[in-house]
Amino acid sequence: MGKEIKTREEDYAQWYNDLVIKGNLADYSAVRGCMVIKPYGFSLWEKMRDQLDRMFKDSGHVNAYFPLFIPKSFLTKEAAHVEGFAKECAVVTHYRLKNDPNGEGIIVDPEAKLEEELIVRPTSETIIWNTYKTWVQSYRDLPLLINQWSNVVRWEMRTRLFLRTTEFLWQEGHTAHATAQEAVDETIQMLNIYADFVENYMALPVIKGVKTESERFAGAIDTYCIEALMQDGKALQAGTSHFLGQNFAKAFDVKFSDKDNKLDYVWATSWGVSTRLVGALVMAHSDDDGLILPPKIAPLQVVIVPIYKGEDKKDLLNEKGKELAAQLKAAGVSVKFDDSDNARPGWKFAEYELKGVPVRIALGLRDLEKNEVEVARRDTKEKIPMSLDGLAGKICQLLEDIHQNIYNKALAYRDKHITKADTWEEFEKLLDEKGGFISAHWDGTAETEEAIKEKTKATIRCIPLNNPLENGKCILTGKPSTQRVLFARAY
Amino acid sequence: MGKEIKTREEDYAQWYNDLVIKGNLADYSAVRGCMVIKPYGFSLWEKMRDQLDRMFKDSGHVNAYFPLFIPKSFLTKEAAHVEGFAKECAVVTHYRLKNDPNGEGIIVDPEAKLEEELIVRPTSETIIWNTYKTWVQSYRDLPLLINQWSNVVRWEMRTRLFLRTTEFLWQEGHTAHATAQEAVDETIQMLNIYADFVENYMALPVIKGVKTESERFAGAIDTYCIEALMQDGKALQAGTSHFLGQNFAKAFDVKFSDKDNKLDYVWATSWGVSTRLVGALVMAHSDDDGLILPPKIAPLQVVIVPIYKGEDKKDLLNEKGKELAAQLKAAGVSVKFDDSDNARPGWKFAEYELKGVPVRIALGLRDLEKNEVEVARRDTKEKIPMSLDGLAGKICQLLEDIHQNIYNKALAYRDKHITKADTWEEFEKLLDEKGGFISAHWDGTAETEEAIKEKTKATIRCIPLNNPLENGKCILTGKPSTQRVLFARAY
Repeated sequence: MGKEIKTREEDYAQWYNDLVIKGNLADYSAVRGCMVIKPYGFSLWEKMRDQLDRMFKDSGHVNAYFPLFIPKSFLTKEAAHVEGFAKECAVVTHYRLKNDPNGEGIIVDPEAKLEEELIVRPTSETIIWNTYKTWVQSYRDLPLLINQWSNVVRWEMRTRLFLRTTEFLWQEGHTAHATAQEAVDETIQMLNIYADFVENYMALPVIKGVKTESERFAGAIDTYCIEALMQDGKALQAGTSHFLGQNFAKAFDVKFSDKDNKLDYVWATSWGVSTRLVGALVMAHSDDDGLILPPKIAPLQVVIVPIYKGEDKKDLLNEKGKELAAQLKAAGVSVKFDDSDNARPGWKFAEYELKGVPVRIALGLRDLEKNEVEVARRDTKEKIPMSLDGLAGKICQLLEDIHQNIYNKALAYRDKHITKADTWEEFEKLLDEKGGFISAHWDGTAETEEAIKEKTKATIRCIPLNNPLENGKCILTGKPSTQRVLFARAY
Repeated sequence: MGKEIKTREEDYAQWYNDLVIKGNLADYSAVRGCMVIKPYGFSLWEKMRDQLDRMFKDSGHVNAYFPLFIPKSFLTKEAAHVEGFAKECAVVTHYRLKNDPNGEGIIVDPEAKLEEELIVRPTSETIIWNTYKTWVQSYRDLPLLINQWSNVVRWEMRTRLFLRTTEFLWQEGHTAHATAQEAVDETIQMLNIYADFVENYMALPVIKGVKTESERFAGAIDTYCIEALMQDGKALQAGTSHFLGQNFAKAFDVKFSDKDNKLDYVWATSWGVSTRLVGALVMAHSDDDGLILPPKIAPLQVVIVPIYKGEDKKDLLNEKGKELAAQLKAAGVSVKFDDSDNARPGWKFAEYELKGVPVRIALGLRDLEKNEVEVARRDTKEKIPMSLDGLAGKICQLLEDIHQNIYNKALAYRDKHITKADTWEEFEKLLDEKGGFISAHWDGTAETEEAIKEKTKATIRCIPLNNPLENGKCILTGKPSTQRVLFARAY
């Protein structure tokens, strides 16, 4: 019965792929590194997107849309940006195809070569700041609080469904401010909104922190991030918010006159999350039987499965099922009454388990005689008989409980996997045997960071916000350090 | 006062551009033929998109996402499709940039040449049907009722904001069915949904019809369309729905086994509308003072402007204004209380007129003493004193009235501009002097259609659905004809 998936124990990477593909979230495509997001997966992304969009709008942001293409020369304007970033990307060089004169299908028309190549956006700072130049003259035009939902392309060598794909969907906020302080406040505000969303909707605890210089976004003064922990002990960066200072304003000459008519460069932020979050969700919560989706973003929260005994009282079961579905819908729950008769209940149970539907209600004749149904939670697999009286209210409460339980479980795992290391031996042993975040002293140099990465594949995930100061010695070099930072192997 | 816009009389094309740019809908970009959709314009598109999305979902469709890139070879698989279509497009040939060894910025890395070029999707039939091949085996997998919201690129030589841009946003539905009849029904259903949306939300009457063979989508058996009329007498195709037969299924070898275990090719439809609709909206309804937006999709339905007399009773006006805004919001109306004091009321009036906000409420002290406000309609520019008692209800009704009035006005104009022509002289004269749709006999050949187009720039917009049969003679050749068709010059 059902579809075969590897267990996490057997092969964690394959388990993940099985869930994504057999759980109908996504599929490989004919284009290297690009995925197809299937309807069930897209519906999950829509739920996440719509909630984030509400949170952006509630905090005063508006959406806009900027071109897919970036003139090649734009990428060179901000020195750090081009150095650290925009090399692996899709380059458009021609604008026409024509019939092959030798009759071999179609070829690129050599006469339709672009004067300047266009880059498919890997991120939009450059094209957007080139536009802001024409929108901003005075302090009255500020702040600009603009977000864009779009597709971006980064030519990744090793791709994984959702986690790292050549094309992905994301949002990118790009704001412009009159003062540094306002831009820093915006950067932190968006970090907090991301943390709020990931914790309270995706049920995934995160650590807020700031990146080291080497891990910073190319062109940023500071990169803030939220870091989550997956079940295999690897970290995953779930969102970033950048304070860009005046770097892009200077690169694209965006100045404004302040109240005293003095000209100054505009201050900037950018921030983004992507379809990568879907991958994080799958990896953080699911089990060997399939997906476990947090109720607040599950495309379907409740499924009702009637247990037919042949044709006996089928009408009664259908009537009760529809009635119950209507009650749940009226209570704001998304629900499906699955009366299809091309599959047996056991097959349906396995299918909805695989798909991570938070609550399953089995409607059987014997239970109905007792005015009851059997309610199964996806997260704990517990089966609870419940009276039909006031059931909708109880299901709403149960969905809340499930969210909290999924969150608590992930939090307990995460907290158990933040470990202090004070010697290099301990550090290596923890990485190999326990995984998770390792809190250790570091001498603050990029060289040491790089050396640790080369030796262990662990990177500094972040310096947590409000990190306590503490004198110590660098885990690798023994040089003095003033605080611990969080290391981990990461996706 | 305010921003200068050309009148329609002076220069219709410039009037349109002025409205789009000065009305803050869109802006030119640094990339040839690509536009920036500004926040106000994007918010209008969001309203349209969200309503369409609801209508698609209510009729059983789901969203998904397919890759931006299409392997070049895919375009050659459906012969008519490649012939008629996919030549002017953005071609990705390389996947990496590198530092110029001569120190001149960055160059395309010649070693990073793709084995097979990738085309930025001009439409997604090919990549989607290549995917459906793996999703469809049995009749149980059908129908697939999938829609995608995405960006597409067609390398247009002459572009105009919204109406024809190199990159644009759209939705493309791609459905797969077990029978021809079901696919035809789907094609017609989507045509009706488009007509419903454009008429009842955009307040723009349309003619439903079918395209002639030469105007058909490349790869379609039949292309159905909705055609609207702009104020300069030119037609605009507002949406299309295609019955694709088994063409793409054959090209990509998509077969299914029916209930009797017999293999057959799958039947297909595709259908789309785009940001072009924003252009149609602007052109169809607006006047020389600015945009006129239909209430159901206006980003902002009502603006309340307080008329301060210095500091005198400013608090009272602000209090009343906020109270009224809250009442309107509670009634489901989107409303802004504009208490900014950096502009005088007259300037604000002109600005909101330019932006097409359907209703403006002026809040003055003298009116308030009479328990009244002055309500101005954007569509008729009528000013109506209204009592504050039950104002929210009256405003809701007024918004309905405005929608109906905008629609009626466009309908009257459209109906006045469908004219019969029975001789070639009449035909040419009507085209040049009156414009609009010309209902005339045509001998049914592509040659005549082409000849008429060459002589007059008029094309056959459609053969209306349920067109009455009538014997006549072709307007150009005098050959026998069985029905009139609709000609027009078009965007």
